Amino acid sequence: MDGEKDLIARIRRALPARRVPGLVLGIGDDAAVLRPNRAVDWVISCDAFLEGVHFLAATHPPETVGYRALARASSDLAAMGAYPRFFLLTLALPPGRVGRWLDRFLHGLARAAKRFGLVLVGGDTSRQPRVVISITVLGEVPAGRALRRAGARPGDLLYVSGRLGAAALGLELLRRGLGRRRRFRRLLRPHLDPPIRLALGQWLARRRLASAMIDTSDGLSTDLTHLVEAGGVGARLERSRLPLAAVPRELVALGIDPLELAINGGEDYELLFTVPRRLRPAIPRSYRGVPLTCIGEIIPEKKLLLGDSAGRARILRAGGWDPFRSRP
Amino acid sequence: MDGEKDLIARIRRALPARRVPGLVLGIGDDAAVLRPNRAVDWVISCDAFLEGVHFLAATHPPETVGYRALARASSDLAAMGAYPRFFLLTLALPPGRVGRWLDRFLHGLARAAKRFGLVLVGGDTSRQPRVVISITVLGEVPAGRALRRAGARPGDLLYVSGRLGAAALGLELLRRGLGRRRRFRRLLRPHLDPPIRLALGQWLARRRLASAMIDTSDGLSTDLTHLVEAGGVGARLERSRLPLAAVPRELVALGIDPLELAINGGEDYELLFTVPRRLRPAIPRSYRGVPLTCIGEIIPEKKLLLGDSAGRARILRAGGWDPFRSRP
Repeated sequence: MDGEKDLIARIRRALPARRVPGLVLGIGDDAAVLRPNRAVDWVISCDAFLEGVHFLAATHPPETVGYRALARASSDLAAMGAYPRFFLLTLALPPGRVGRWLDRFLHGLARAAKRFGLVLVGGDTSRQPRVVISITVLGEVPAGRALRRAGARPGDLLYVSGRLGAAALGLELLRRGLGRRRRFRRLLRPHLDPPIRLALGQWLARRRLASAMIDTSDGLSTDLTHLVEAGGVGARLERSRLPLAAVPRELVALGIDPLELAINGGEDYELLFTVPRRLRPAIPRSYRGVPLTCIGEIIPEKKLLLGDSAGRARILRAGGWDPFRSRP
Repeated sequence: MDGEKDLIARIRRALPARRVPGLVLGIGDDAAVLRPNRAVDWVISCDAFLEGVHFLAATHPPETVGYRALARASSDLAAMGAYPRFFLLTLALPPGRVGRWLDRFLHGLARAAKRFGLVLVGGDTSRQPRVVISITVLGEVPAGRALRRAGARPGDLLYVSGRLGAAALGLELLRRGLGRRRRFRRLLRPHLDPPIRLALGQWLARRRLASAMIDTSDGLSTDLTHLVEAGGVGARLERSRLPLAAVPRELVALGIDPLELAINGGEDYELLFTVPRRLRPAIPRSYRGVPLTCIGEIIPEKKLLLGDSAGRARILRAGGWDPFRSRP
């Protein structure tokens, strides 16, 4: 099998999309859009968060598992420009996790729910040898304003929020057992406690400033591939413009490459969006303290290019997170 | 830990229900009810379907896993009187299940989707050492007509659809390795291919005939306990009235007890509902070919009683399916 993409393609073949009343956008985007009335579209999405895939029981404190599970799902709402409303929780636990671990997990989950404005409205619980979490989130967006992956046109400018690779740096420190060192502790935060760009997404959708949008949950190269494939276009990134997360020199010396983290590191949950050129003046340098950086542009050729300062460009391939290939 | 109930209570403590606009009914029922407009309420629910818990990879053909996973979730919609519309699928698979197994699973899932009228609108895929399925279903119901677990009053009559214990009989045959015997094969169907009582639930909700309703997914004793606890009441069942699934004499001789199957066997997905006495004439003996049987009544004392033909009664305890106690 050829990774997640092939799996999804087979699911879509087995269960083909149909045009039905009330369905604005179905499988294949960050979330589905339903239209129960004329004023508001409901946005719904689900995300798995699994032991051994999305987190390691021995490495990740349970509070951060609860927080990150809901953050991951909520970021899909941010990527549509939606306002979070409700969520459902599927939770399966081994016997050893139903005590203190569960309480701490729920504490982190509740903190995320409060921060993102989500209300738990249902769920299912069961047992399993490894922790299984699946979260469904529901949000709303003014009718017709949901921002999709498709929609980018050649010439549109490509923007990203925040800094890229910060979450992957935190994960790398945990993997290398460097997480407990005091001077590195703040570098763990983007991985353990990522902010979700809800206000930014809502603003872009409300003001109709973006032609397409996705969140960088799987890494820039992979998520940008999703965005350009959905639009039937390509993109050229400028290496010098990428807002790389700062990596201390001693970590660079250990072989941690800021560019690699920025391009292929997952879980930044930043927003990657395209803006028609005429709207460029409407995009500030930052929105509510979050930097917005123009990192390239959309091109008609269906490929991803990474340009350097000498004007040369190399082909960029999707090398981010894939649950069927990557390690947690 | 004290089983699923305790787990849910802790989740509710960590994430308390809040009154928010648009939320008609949240956690604690078969499904949550949202109200995006004045004509229709949306009904949403999620259910896990896990290898080793809800099915055994060596025993259950993959088609039946796909069918049953969606049936289980859809039965929650039936139990609210809702019309199925959309669903989302979380699916995590081990490497050995992404080939032919997946195709067959999807075939069964697609058959269920067609049968129940559900359209897939999203999902998430990942890997895991054992198959993990979590399904979120969305349905709609005329505003205010969703049938809840709460609402039964003393004196209300207790009805159940279909026959009880038929699914548990099929599972027991598989467990004992008797499933391949030709003369038993039709007895497997209620377990492998259960019907879901959508039309009955919709009819009861539309006509306002039931005061409370739940589906018998976990077994009569357990689901009736949920219903009476939600209503702050109790119930007295009459043993002679229970519509027991027929068990061939040779299987009874092997120790398979029809009454035990009917009371504690799960996955029948029949509807268990209460009817105010004055509405009794409106309940036919069957609805669209499905028998409707009055099996007892609601009593003010908060207990479950099982009466015999001599007029005696014994206390009945919840002994049905609990994912933290039962085996698949």
